[in-house]
Amino acid sequence: MDLHGGNIYKILREEGRKVLDYSANINPLGLPQSLKDKLKEDLSFLEQYPDPEYIEMREAIGKHNDIHKENIIVGNGATEILFLYGKAQNPNHVVIVSPTFAEYERAFYKSKKITYFPLEEKEDFKLSLERLKERIEELNHGEKVDLVVICNPNNPTGGFIPKEEIEELGKLGGEKKFKILVDEAFIEFVHGGLSQSVASYRNKNIFIVRALTKFFAIPGVRLGYGISFDEKLNKKIKEIREPWSVNGIAEGVTKVLLEDREYIKKSEEWIEKEKKWFYQELLKISKVKPYKTQVNFILVKLVGELEVKEFKKLMLEKNILIRDASNFQFLNDKYFRLAIRDRKSNEEVLRSIKDVIR
Amino acid sequence: MDLHGGNIYKILREEGRKVLDYSANINPLGLPQSLKDKLKEDLSFLEQYPDPEYIEMREAIGKHNDIHKENIIVGNGATEILFLYGKAQNPNHVVIVSPTFAEYERAFYKSKKITYFPLEEKEDFKLSLERLKERIEELNHGEKVDLVVICNPNNPTGGFIPKEEIEELGKLGGEKKFKILVDEAFIEFVHGGLSQSVASYRNKNIFIVRALTKFFAIPGVRLGYGISFDEKLNKKIKEIREPWSVNGIAEGVTKVLLEDREYIKKSEEWIEKEKKWFYQELLKISKVKPYKTQVNFILVKLVGELEVKEFKKLMLEKNILIRDASNFQFLNDKYFRLAIRDRKSNEEVLRSIKDVIR
Repeated sequence: MDLHGGNIYKILREEGRKVLDYSANINPLGLPQSLKDKLKEDLSFLEQYPDPEYIEMREAIGKHNDIHKENIIVGNGATEILFLYGKAQNPNHVVIVSPTFAEYERAFYKSKKITYFPLEEKEDFKLSLERLKERIEELNHGEKVDLVVICNPNNPTGGFIPKEEIEELGKLGGEKKFKILVDEAFIEFVHGGLSQSVASYRNKNIFIVRALTKFFAIPGVRLGYGISFDEKLNKKIKEIREPWSVNGIAEGVTKVLLEDREYIKKSEEWIEKEKKWFYQELLKISKVKPYKTQVNFILVKLVGELEVKEFKKLMLEKNILIRDASNFQFLNDKYFRLAIRDRKSNEEVLRSIKDVIR
Repeated sequence: MDLHGGNIYKILREEGRKVLDYSANINPLGLPQSLKDKLKEDLSFLEQYPDPEYIEMREAIGKHNDIHKENIIVGNGATEILFLYGKAQNPNHVVIVSPTFAEYERAFYKSKKITYFPLEEKEDFKLSLERLKERIEELNHGEKVDLVVICNPNNPTGGFIPKEEIEELGKLGGEKKFKILVDEAFIEFVHGGLSQSVASYRNKNIFIVRALTKFFAIPGVRLGYGISFDEKLNKKIKEIREPWSVNGIAEGVTKVLLEDREYIKKSEEWIEKEKKWFYQELLKISKVKPYKTQVNFILVKLVGELEVKEFKKLMLEKNILIRDASNFQFLNDKYFRLAIRDRKSNEEVLRSIKDVIR
């Protein structure tokens, strides 16, 4: 199971090699100082059971989003939120906008039918809402669609559609009786950040998944949440969930992280500058085609003869780990994904790509 | 949901009251120094995704138990292990030896039938294997029993039956086609510790649940594991589990904890001395009946007029939080459970009980 580059990275590190990990989409600023300080001064939350209701944690997240804590569901990473939603909603026919994160399929493994709605390469993998609506209409003649899953911004394509469009789909869902799950795990990296979230519409058809993992560089902590305005669903989730799934560290650091204005500001400045620059620089390289990204990673296509397996191997010889994207639905052995990191590392990656593909 | 005293404790603490928490069964020695040192020197495991296979972690646990890592399943607390087993095994008719931990019932909520096998007060809640075997035989005339759940040592009664008896049941399970789930979350507190575990028989009918939470005083970390010699089951669990459910802190500290011989030794010495002494002292108090315990908590019955709700209130006025045990199956409003802590605190609790019930 090629779950994450992080694992390979570890093996390589143990071999004593210093590898630049461009396979995982983590904020390169690393652990926030505020988090380190907190852990230095206070470990009491390790000694206690987490609050089974996670009230303070949900309050902090609610405040950060200007949403009442009753609409916040915390999870052991975004993954738990996703699987909880799958269990609670238990949809019959799921449409997944693809290529995208593979875990959606697993979260809805009990569904009778899963249909992949393809983002088109010729449209640079940008989601066409019109085409999606038509497709849902069409599918409804057969097994009725009751859930549409959209990763927004989308992993691995880096595309982002405005909240107005998601809301439009949410309204259509109200008429046609389908729900929308929007995974906003990367929304903090979009220009404007949380203000661009569809959460502001408080549409009870739209369930939102979030993670603190990527933006705050804490994948080890496991810290995700859901935003939902559907009271019935929230009650159901409460009933079926396992107790204490969110650990005390996550509980203990949430508030500290969300209030770390300095880290947030620095990260926003970094990503704003770096994503445009990196895209432009990739454009200049012949034999690769980068797709415009709104976030901290970028999808790239090899347009020459080279295939991604070989390319990955060659890059690894240069101590750079990329994400082979060939196993994403609708992609093939020409695609890879790069994280976007600090300028110096990005320059090194660009140099290596040029070396490798010429 | 009265999930844990820990929550009430938090509220009281916020009121500025210093409360002795006798409701949660956590090692009073507190966070191991080795753990604090580790967190001071190395937080890198927060910045990385956990190894999706948790190989090093399972190796450390395997070594600690003298069991191969292939037989170790790690979990986000013992709770995740329990629920995973429930999903993977999906038993039809479950017999739960009771009174016991309430989560078993939730873990098997999809089972067609749950039968509670009562431990008898007149037998001081000691499990009679003969009676249990007879009962299974009897039940098999109706809906066939396919799983027996035993918490050993048992929460809240503190009783422990020798591994030979569990193994005997495991053999019977082989003949009669039922499985056994043994929750050994408190086994480190038993005299002889892990050497008393039924794991040594490597019986593939017997699935064992463990936690590091109680013994190492780290409920906030969420760290549990399962021991299973059933390859088919282990494969199934691997298939259905959510990725990265165990956080990086748990992954990062497991080895450190299991190798902290000093903490383990100190804890064993403390519990060995304190459990006997506390039981003897409780025996001396009229109007309460303590039940002999093998672990770090003790079940007590009010034998006078006083009921537990009132008793709990009176104890709280003395800033001691006890666990009302009336909501355990087969217990009633006369029962409460006490943690066993350090001598000074235990003396204070004994004094308060005497004051309150005279």
